[in-house]
Amino acid sequence: MKIQVNDKKALIDAAMNRIENDLVIKNAKVVNMFTGEILLGNIFISQGFISHIEYNDLNDIRAKVVYDALGMYAIPGLIDAHVHIESSMMTPRNFCKAVLPWGTTTVITDPHEIGNVWGIDGVKYMHDDGENLPMRQFIDIPSCVPAVPNLEFAGADFLAAQIEELTSLDRVIGLAEVMDFLAVINGEKRMLDILKVAEDHNLYIQGHAPFLGGRALSAYLCGGPRTCHETRDAQEALNKYRAGTSNAMRDSSMCKNVPAIWDGIKNSRYFDTLCLCTDDRESEDILKVGHINDVIRTAIKCGMNPIDAIKSATINTAREIKMDNLGALAPGYVADIILLDKLEEMNPKAVFYQGKQVVQDHQLLVSVPERNFAIEHKNSINIKDLYVNDFKIKAPIQNGKVKVNVMTFQDYDLSTTDAVVEELEVKDGYLTLNGDKDLKFVAVVNRYGRNNIALHVARRFGTTHGALASTVSHDSHNLTIVYDTAENALIAANEIKRVAGGMVAVEDNKIIHTLALPIGGLLSFKPAEELAKDANLMKKANYQLGLTMLENPLLRIVTLALPVIPNVKMSDLGLVDVNAKKIIPLFVS
Amino acid sequence: MKIQVNDKKALIDAAMNRIENDLVIKNAKVVNMFTGEILLGNIFISQGFISHIEYNDLNDIRAKVVYDALGMYAIPGLIDAHVHIESSMMTPRNFCKAVLPWGTTTVITDPHEIGNVWGIDGVKYMHDDGENLPMRQFIDIPSCVPAVPNLEFAGADFLAAQIEELTSLDRVIGLAEVMDFLAVINGEKRMLDILKVAEDHNLYIQGHAPFLGGRALSAYLCGGPRTCHETRDAQEALNKYRAGTSNAMRDSSMCKNVPAIWDGIKNSRYFDTLCLCTDDRESEDILKVGHINDVIRTAIKCGMNPIDAIKSATINTAREIKMDNLGALAPGYVADIILLDKLEEMNPKAVFYQGKQVVQDHQLLVSVPERNFAIEHKNSINIKDLYVNDFKIKAPIQNGKVKVNVMTFQDYDLSTTDAVVEELEVKDGYLTLNGDKDLKFVAVVNRYGRNNIALHVARRFGTTHGALASTVSHDSHNLTIVYDTAENALIAANEIKRVAGGMVAVEDNKIIHTLALPIGGLLSFKPAEELAKDANLMKKANYQLGLTMLENPLLRIVTLALPVIPNVKMSDLGLVDVNAKKIIPLFVS
Repeated sequence: MKIQVNDKKALIDAAMNRIENDLVIKNAKVVNMFTGEILLGNIFISQGFISHIEYNDLNDIRAKVVYDALGMYAIPGLIDAHVHIESSMMTPRNFCKAVLPWGTTTVITDPHEIGNVWGIDGVKYMHDDGENLPMRQFIDIPSCVPAVPNLEFAGADFLAAQIEELTSLDRVIGLAEVMDFLAVINGEKRMLDILKVAEDHNLYIQGHAPFLGGRALSAYLCGGPRTCHETRDAQEALNKYRAGTSNAMRDSSMCKNVPAIWDGIKNSRYFDTLCLCTDDRESEDILKVGHINDVIRTAIKCGMNPIDAIKSATINTAREIKMDNLGALAPGYVADIILLDKLEEMNPKAVFYQGKQVVQDHQLLVSVPERNFAIEHKNSINIKDLYVNDFKIKAPIQNGKVKVNVMTFQDYDLSTTDAVVEELEVKDGYLTLNGDKDLKFVAVVNRYGRNNIALHVARRFGTTHGALASTVSHDSHNLTIVYDTAENALIAANEIKRVAGGMVAVEDNKIIHTLALPIGGLLSFKPAEELAKDANLMKKANYQLGLTMLENPLLRIVTLALPVIPNVKMSDLGLVDVNAKKIIPLFVS
Repeated sequence: MKIQVNDKKALIDAAMNRIENDLVIKNAKVVNMFTGEILLGNIFISQGFISHIEYNDLNDIRAKVVYDALGMYAIPGLIDAHVHIESSMMTPRNFCKAVLPWGTTTVITDPHEIGNVWGIDGVKYMHDDGENLPMRQFIDIPSCVPAVPNLEFAGADFLAAQIEELTSLDRVIGLAEVMDFLAVINGEKRMLDILKVAEDHNLYIQGHAPFLGGRALSAYLCGGPRTCHETRDAQEALNKYRAGTSNAMRDSSMCKNVPAIWDGIKNSRYFDTLCLCTDDRESEDILKVGHINDVIRTAIKCGMNPIDAIKSATINTAREIKMDNLGALAPGYVADIILLDKLEEMNPKAVFYQGKQVVQDHQLLVSVPERNFAIEHKNSINIKDLYVNDFKIKAPIQNGKVKVNVMTFQDYDLSTTDAVVEELEVKDGYLTLNGDKDLKFVAVVNRYGRNNIALHVARRFGTTHGALASTVSHDSHNLTIVYDTAENALIAANEIKRVAGGMVAVEDNKIIHTLALPIGGLLSFKPAEELAKDANLMKKANYQLGLTMLENPLLRIVTLALPVIPNVKMSDLGLVDVNAKKIIPLFVS
């Protein structure tokens, strides 16, 4: 595929200098993605495309506008190989404002979160808000809505027919991360049908295969996915690389995988199947640290050659998504260009999107359209009236001790878990936490009108007291509450309902802070700066409840109900054995 | 795009070892196209695809058939990035028999020659004969039929509508070499419309841009083509590489471009846009020297790393044509596999196509189907009755001297030419050659029923006497005759008509040898071995006429009427100024 030029004849004429070019960026050290060279040149731009790069005659600068790069490096606009914009809690338009100053001109987004909430309408909303921005937001169709069918209920259920419908969207280029790797490996019909739709439409298929290796990895790749951004270990990275998996080195707010992956593949002769991605970065990280430019910086710090690292975030990714004229500085390519002083620092001085300067010294030069979508004002929280008793766990005995499958985090800073049997005390027919501050109740409340509530017990979650609630709860985004008392849980739940979704912290029957995310219970209307302040107050409230072991405590609750992370996770149907794909009962019989 | 597996579920099951694989190639040094490593492993194959490669447990060999590679190297089946099968003078089925023992399992063919003769029917014939062979013959749709519209008449005229019609063929993957680079650079509507059809159908666009650089190259690339196999010079190669042109290093029977191209790009950091091609190799070369394996060998001799060279003839080319599961040894990839002892020697011991062994020790293990197409028996030579006077050039004066634009070869072994004014004697109203043995008459006779004949004079063609005639005459394939006397020319022309096309050598009014090419005047029914003998006799006849300066004299006449090679070339309308795109008169006024 190509990004089409409006008037090809005129572009050819501009290349030949028969008509004046719109812009020339003169005196730039052009970083070449084909040869790896750095050559001083003048970049000619017409209709948003590079018509010509002149390396020989540096006095050749005739154009409507001349921008003097003053010897700065010119590199292609950066591409994020995989990102959930929802993880920034911003709308696509506000996300654009936040990442563009860092030089991200293209993202491959997976609107998976909003897809779980609002189904096709949600994906269309993310698509439509991403239209006509000073950046390119490509869409991969969410492949696993819900993440694990039959073991959770989300707001939507994507079968092949829904995937088929979404292929008609303008900027759809792929099928998003196929997380249900077990469904692929087991050859389940629902998943094979979805993969077939993608192949029939010539969409690339993005993978998601944490810990996979050996025959299981082979089976997954035979099923169709060819990429993976879920690698955490050096040997795992090398195994995947050898098997032809296009590896994306991820550096999200939560998962910092670049050092391990690089360590695994650094002795490789080729890096042409290497990409970079952020997956999930929250607004404060984007504001303070950066975006894909920061991932490049991290890769360079790990020892990667700077040009290889830039290539991984530009043309390698463009090739992965089969976009033929994106990701390099060459004639016929889209004129997404970054100018910077030092490659290692990756600090863009100027950013050009489709031939138009959009950023100078980190300041946006263009206005991002204000928009208003009806769906943004639709309350996505559909939960019946709740009572204190909804959050109490009725035991099979009246008093005494029962054995319980406790969802046990492997550590306070790890999201991996096991089911561990513990003995808990029952008082007056209800389960207690034995007064153990390391234990918490967990409730997952379906928020899509089904009225089912799953209650369980967790160890090593991290809070010492109070209640935390969130409608950001990957991937079904049901209302998830971790709490000490049913009273605190109810207050949190009702506050969530009041603000139409978000995050709430409650202590001693009082709300400490509410982070309202009224768009689908996932997104705020606020731009990055305001949102980051609000999120910071929420973090402080988390710390106050004892969740101090993570740099970003907000990320703790949001993966508690993600039944693709081993070994056990919650859903609105109960505790899920991720590997065996079945519900584990709370009480051990 | 992917080569689709019949039963994906069963392939997944084979990967998991739930069902028995069809074949395991055990104990092979697997050359990895992603990491550049060489690792001992067992390659499992099911339904023609690699289901799994086991590197850890080498005792894991359960499969229906076990092939012991005895520690030989395993590399992917080789891909020729650009070939005209017609140049071998063989049918697609016979071509298959000739190249398969060398490990060529995939070719990207441009049935451009037969397209010029028989139009859409010709392309369909090449496509259909390429079906169900023990190799893969992909089709690029000929983009320039005729090569230079309005300056020559071929048997067909491909406009956008014809290109559109041909996109429906099963194995069409691209638009073939866009030779009319001037039409692109000038933004001519006919060409832009053709390019648009290709882009609308998501076909890759193959380029052809000899000598192009600077703004002209940029304009060409802006027009759409992104590859080139017509590079002859080191600096030209580097310029194209920098501009993002995917370079194919060509090693045809005529053009040996590997050393120059390699010299130009060898210091590049990346070679992921480098491919290899044969373009035009005749049967004897294929038999004696090899095919793409020989091009790899040449690249290695030039100093290229063997694994880089193999990569250039496998996955790089697969990526160029957007074929996602071809060109590497990895799970989910097509099981086209070559086993060989030494990488440098590139001498396949065994070849597997789609998981089935097809060659052992250079012997075919499978039969290639005998076929019979009606079109193969249709006489393509449509020329009116000819007379001696048709080959005499009437001068504007009765006797004396006239100035003539002589088509002058730059050297006896160069195909490039200039128009050079010479004074020639006229006798009895007809032009003479001044008795100069270095001069010859040239006739190009339209053979598609138009009855036009262009007559001219050439210097330094190479023959000393007699007449050479050929219906292989790129790209219009009109009957081209180079001769001393009109009588010899007439004998040659009538012999061509008698055998329905081919090549003829005449000396002193006697036919020395005829190479019959009855299929479209281009192809023989004979397999490589027989054809090579026949062609050798034809070469000897050429030598006998004095054409001794070229290793392969047959190639001299076939490019004489190719009006895309600078600076002047013949067509059935006269002498063409290639750069100015106009007819140059014979007589200087």
